[in-house]
Amino acid sequence: MKAVVCHHGQLNVQEVAEPEPGKGQMLLNVLRCGICGSDLHARDHADELADATQRVGYDKIMLSQDQVVLGHEFVGEIADYGPKTHRRWKAGERVVAMPLMRAGGEAHPTGLSTCAPGAYAERMVVEQSLTFRVPNGISDDHAALTEPMAVSLHAVNRSGVGRRDTAIVIGCGPIGLGVIAMLKAKGVRHIVASDYSPTRRKLARAMGAHVVVDPSEGSPYEGLAKRGFVVNAPQLFDMALDGMSMLRLTPFPWEPLWRAVEVAGVTEPKRPVIFECVGVPGVINSIIDEAPLRSCVVVVGVCMKTDNFVPVNAINKEIDLRFVLGYMPIEFRDALHMIAEGKVNVEPLITGTVGLSGVDDAFTALRDPEQHAKILIDPRKA
Amino acid sequence: MKAVVCHHGQLNVQEVAEPEPGKGQMLLNVLRCGICGSDLHARDHADELADATQRVGYDKIMLSQDQVVLGHEFVGEIADYGPKTHRRWKAGERVVAMPLMRAGGEAHPTGLSTCAPGAYAERMVVEQSLTFRVPNGISDDHAALTEPMAVSLHAVNRSGVGRRDTAIVIGCGPIGLGVIAMLKAKGVRHIVASDYSPTRRKLARAMGAHVVVDPSEGSPYEGLAKRGFVVNAPQLFDMALDGMSMLRLTPFPWEPLWRAVEVAGVTEPKRPVIFECVGVPGVINSIIDEAPLRSCVVVVGVCMKTDNFVPVNAINKEIDLRFVLGYMPIEFRDALHMIAEGKVNVEPLITGTVGLSGVDDAFTALRDPEQHAKILIDPRKA
Repeated sequence: MKAVVCHHGQLNVQEVAEPEPGKGQMLLNVLRCGICGSDLHARDHADELADATQRVGYDKIMLSQDQVVLGHEFVGEIADYGPKTHRRWKAGERVVAMPLMRAGGEAHPTGLSTCAPGAYAERMVVEQSLTFRVPNGISDDHAALTEPMAVSLHAVNRSGVGRRDTAIVIGCGPIGLGVIAMLKAKGVRHIVASDYSPTRRKLARAMGAHVVVDPSEGSPYEGLAKRGFVVNAPQLFDMALDGMSMLRLTPFPWEPLWRAVEVAGVTEPKRPVIFECVGVPGVINSIIDEAPLRSCVVVVGVCMKTDNFVPVNAINKEIDLRFVLGYMPIEFRDALHMIAEGKVNVEPLITGTVGLSGVDDAFTALRDPEQHAKILIDPRKA
Repeated sequence: MKAVVCHHGQLNVQEVAEPEPGKGQMLLNVLRCGICGSDLHARDHADELADATQRVGYDKIMLSQDQVVLGHEFVGEIADYGPKTHRRWKAGERVVAMPLMRAGGEAHPTGLSTCAPGAYAERMVVEQSLTFRVPNGISDDHAALTEPMAVSLHAVNRSGVGRRDTAIVIGCGPIGLGVIAMLKAKGVRHIVASDYSPTRRKLARAMGAHVVVDPSEGSPYEGLAKRGFVVNAPQLFDMALDGMSMLRLTPFPWEPLWRAVEVAGVTEPKRPVIFECVGVPGVINSIIDEAPLRSCVVVVGVCMKTDNFVPVNAINKEIDLRFVLGYMPIEFRDALHMIAEGKVNVEPLITGTVGLSGVDDAFTALRDPEQHAKILIDPRKA
């Protein structure tokens, strides 16, 4: 079959061996596969990526010298089942799957390891246990967005954001845009998005941002003081003093009342939620510098380089930095269902579709945020 | 009255003006005041500290050129009330207070600003609303530990640690030791403490650590795999695959069961809680490098210098970094009551008591962890 093979930073369409599903696995005809930022990174900096994952004990991430079929954001139709596998669904049914598979007794990330070829191909193998049937009525294009939307949903879940909160999204690449859509789906009342690109800002609005900011002209943190967030230490001092003076007017000590008022935020400020979706050095530090006190910063952008920050500045603001990666299986499934039910609209994200022969050009085109957000591969397309 | 004045890195006992309580304020005769790590830092690096707080909008932190009376961990007896102040307690009653006071219409941190002289003195002014009466039966020494124990309690509260969790305390200075005591008081089942100093390790055990580690000989993270923590990515991959295979054996999709099992941790690993109580560059990065996946790291140690870390390593482990500072008023009060009720025993922390004239020497002595943990000042002592 045909596949796009990544080798020494080159992407070439080649004939490769037909994949064979093992026990518990299924063979899919790939219908669509999204090109992910990680794929771009894997093409150009595979060895760096391999170093980083080696530090968490996984040593089979592709090296630049390897020949690897990328692709982990896919939808396919069932072509066959492996031996001794429960045939739950009929051939031809459409499924999405978490990109993880067993080979040689070990689990490997699909599309990022020589052991688990990905979906830049006509066919691929997936684990049945990680597979979810695509509901009728949802297009192949949209179903292929399940994986990145699961990443976004996981980031939003890890933030603990509530409907009445304010969320600020720094960086409107596909994941930042997905985060905006998931915040919107959760009913978050105030969503601010920031990006240097006018096209990305327009997409941010389409995905549900209430305010969009060009950081070269304004600050995404502007106006937060007016929304009740604590932006400096003197405010915090006053809250403690005023709060306690007020509490002390009540017959003291009437414990339950006091505890209730305090827990309700009389002396503890509310936390804005900030999503770092850029992933280059310096962004985390600039957020720490500019964000309100008590901000919860969810770090979604993957910065591979050494970064600097000044811990005391994070301490003085009691910042939370929550680093996130991937998703839980239930979040993958929830993302699929949210797309199916129209709770998130992924349509604006999709800016192009190419055949296998168009992948190399697509990688180049994706460097320009004015041109593209998400490009899908349709292996059946010429 | 006599006070210890800090000026250009020197500590001298001087005659200073008698403090006068304003509206809503009380005058205290200081009974004891602890010497805090921040005081040591303020003597030697006041301008650095001032820079950092200026970044959060407070510009009245002492400069090295200022003449300041330090001291924010104190207990005193009521000497007088300011004008138009409700005289809730009798003169002679003992109180502790949050170190924050109004002067010139603004709130200032007591003992760290020229506007709010601290407790290295015979007398001082406090805000009545931030004051808590010391229960009978608790010694002056122990009551003076309320403030640092509130810092420790706040750190533990912010960690969200539960009784069945594993907590690891890196650095056993007074705050690290306080964290251990608070973890013990919360009934945390497994507390590991790490410090290079044998004396500090002995203190860690006295405060309630179950395991103490000399980091030059072993790792505080050793044995965590056996305790069910996920220490590498392949384990995580297996959890997702095995968890999902198991779930898929049940009649599918039976939503509530699936959600319950997932939430219970079948596919999501449990999080150890790590307290960074050192505060020098490199410690945060070493924790990110060595800790299990999904660790929640509470950063209590105040590192004033620029620090390095590699975000992707924190991402690949989904680390939480929670920076903490101070406490809420209710935590200050809870700390006092926990000391009073014997839920925490602060006695081992106290390694010396000096008069005002002994403060300078005490600052020197505190540099040696083998010699001291917490030194108290008794202004009535010769």
